[in-house]
Amino acid sequence: MHTVDVDLGLRSYDIHIDNGLIGRAGTLLSAAMGRTAAVITNSTIAPLYLTALKNSLAAAGFKVFEIVLPDGEQFKTLDTMHVIYDQLLGFGLDRSGFLVALGGGVVGDMTGFAAATFLRGIPFVQIPTTLLAQVDSSVGGKTGVNLPGGKNMVGAFYQPKAVIIDPLVLQTLPERELRAGLAEVIKYGVISDPGFFAFLESNLRAIMRLDTAALASVIVRCCSIKADITSRDEREQGVRAHLNFGHTLGHAVETLTGYADFLHGEAVAIGMCAAAQLAQSLGLCGSADVHRIEGLVERAGLPVAAPQFPAVDYLRVMLKDKKKTGSTVNFVLPHRIGEVALHPVSQDRLRAFLTGNLAMP
Amino acid sequence: MHTVDVDLGLRSYDIHIDNGLIGRAGTLLSAAMGRTAAVITNSTIAPLYLTALKNSLAAAGFKVFEIVLPDGEQFKTLDTMHVIYDQLLGFGLDRSGFLVALGGGVVGDMTGFAAATFLRGIPFVQIPTTLLAQVDSSVGGKTGVNLPGGKNMVGAFYQPKAVIIDPLVLQTLPERELRAGLAEVIKYGVISDPGFFAFLESNLRAIMRLDTAALASVIVRCCSIKADITSRDEREQGVRAHLNFGHTLGHAVETLTGYADFLHGEAVAIGMCAAAQLAQSLGLCGSADVHRIEGLVERAGLPVAAPQFPAVDYLRVMLKDKKKTGSTVNFVLPHRIGEVALHPVSQDRLRAFLTGNLAMP
Repeated sequence: MHTVDVDLGLRSYDIHIDNGLIGRAGTLLSAAMGRTAAVITNSTIAPLYLTALKNSLAAAGFKVFEIVLPDGEQFKTLDTMHVIYDQLLGFGLDRSGFLVALGGGVVGDMTGFAAATFLRGIPFVQIPTTLLAQVDSSVGGKTGVNLPGGKNMVGAFYQPKAVIIDPLVLQTLPERELRAGLAEVIKYGVISDPGFFAFLESNLRAIMRLDTAALASVIVRCCSIKADITSRDEREQGVRAHLNFGHTLGHAVETLTGYADFLHGEAVAIGMCAAAQLAQSLGLCGSADVHRIEGLVERAGLPVAAPQFPAVDYLRVMLKDKKKTGSTVNFVLPHRIGEVALHPVSQDRLRAFLTGNLAMP
Repeated sequence: MHTVDVDLGLRSYDIHIDNGLIGRAGTLLSAAMGRTAAVITNSTIAPLYLTALKNSLAAAGFKVFEIVLPDGEQFKTLDTMHVIYDQLLGFGLDRSGFLVALGGGVVGDMTGFAAATFLRGIPFVQIPTTLLAQVDSSVGGKTGVNLPGGKNMVGAFYQPKAVIIDPLVLQTLPERELRAGLAEVIKYGVISDPGFFAFLESNLRAIMRLDTAALASVIVRCCSIKADITSRDEREQGVRAHLNFGHTLGHAVETLTGYADFLHGEAVAIGMCAAAQLAQSLGLCGSADVHRIEGLVERAGLPVAAPQFPAVDYLRVMLKDKKKTGSTVNFVLPHRIGEVALHPVSQDRLRAFLTGNLAMP
């Protein structure tokens, strides 16, 4: 088993990574947690892994409740939170209980936010079941829901007590979801690790045919990078913002398409390519690196071109981004593969870029 | 001006107490906060104090938005939170902005929860306008909303950047609200300060005719006690639970009556008398102290008797209390005036007490 430590003082926790780990979750958690667990999952994951998890928890002596949500980013709302809260109250869960997120990023974000806010905070554990959640969203404590006006606009920084990653679950992951997860994997290479980016260029085929060794290696590497960045900057005052590479325009794509046309990772892929082009247009990044980024995104079967919306629509949404200050938008832009920095981009500059490159005039 | 420091390391802040302070809020905040403020208040307070506050903030160079909520505990819901979030998003408020709670406990709790969760956390300031909020709910960082199934079931521990208390606003407070606030004032005497309890016994008349010196003295004393307890135990792992004296049964009264018949302080008054009687019935507290508590509550014009509901209803609601563990309910019970402790009370014991003392059989 691989263990990656997320070093956050009193809020430190371990990421456990091993094939078949869902079946050993009960044992893994038995020392550290209270005796009552509420597992939150969705209707896609429940038939695949909920029974195995519940059996493992029950065998370790936990009393287990379950909440099965509908599957999809469009359900990541305050209304769904209300449903979760009412059910937790119905279970009689108290502060000695804990939540378990069994699912992808949507389940993890909502379960984490429920844990952050139910009874003003109870413990929770992440068991991510998509590549995207395993390499990114389950680690670092960002939780929350979307508003109709913007993605992740409501939430909390709230760390899990443990992350349990079972790479074997990826064998049942739809190919489109796997590709979407690869967008975040590629992101880690661009923002901080040129060697890892080159590894991905060499091993993309093995990863995409779900080679277990290649997958485990990717997950461990990504979790280590995420853990390191989170430890240095839990609340995104500095370096953690680099993890938003591709997300500023990516979020706008998701918002403008009503969270319906693109998976989060697909939108991030579009956002990374746009950010690379923007960096090139600003003279920050050479064309060779831009082409390598676009090439790897394309080979991963991900979209590179942004959907056509008027520039004014993109601007309007990006000016509501959490990372904006005043009337500039802060973009994470690559200088080269392995190095990015935050750059404020003025509205006018951004409008010119969007009009010229992505959007309808 | 009196200043009480709430010592919480990096999250420390000051409580500023002075007559006329709302008119100086802008100056007071000008050094510490970002340049954009969203004031959240209610339809009762807005006509009285919103203009003065906005003028003060504007004069200090702040850009000011406002949200006026309907007045009442029944609006302390997730639905109202959704309205707040949508408006904040509409203002284009970003992480360099901050919220201002201008109102009583309901406005403060919801504004604090909005600050804790909008964009995963932005700063906020409390300007409490009821006695209850000035002496209790605005200090200590408890924020949240009610669920249909229970009070304050969803929320966060999230500290304000400052608390600004203007005792003059109490001159316009309805008498019933003043009395409700006195319940929490009396609470401080019972849980930690026999001298203060005696002061209240001697000065109740002056306080109730809104003598400014007596009121200022009461507010400073209560804030000091609350600040001290909060500093020692921010997240209610220990001594902070003492602040819940009267609240366990009090919350049940509020829940059973749909938050409509009793103000929070009135329910706490009922809960304090019930807790004193329960303590006496368990041999923990002598009858003389129980009578002093009931006597002061009664002289403050507060209810002492719980509304008649079947014991099973009280039990059901109290077993959902945040402070319960397993099938016992943790009560804060007085040993004498100035000293309380947490006591687990079994369901059976509690049922017998409720049946014999408060509720319909």
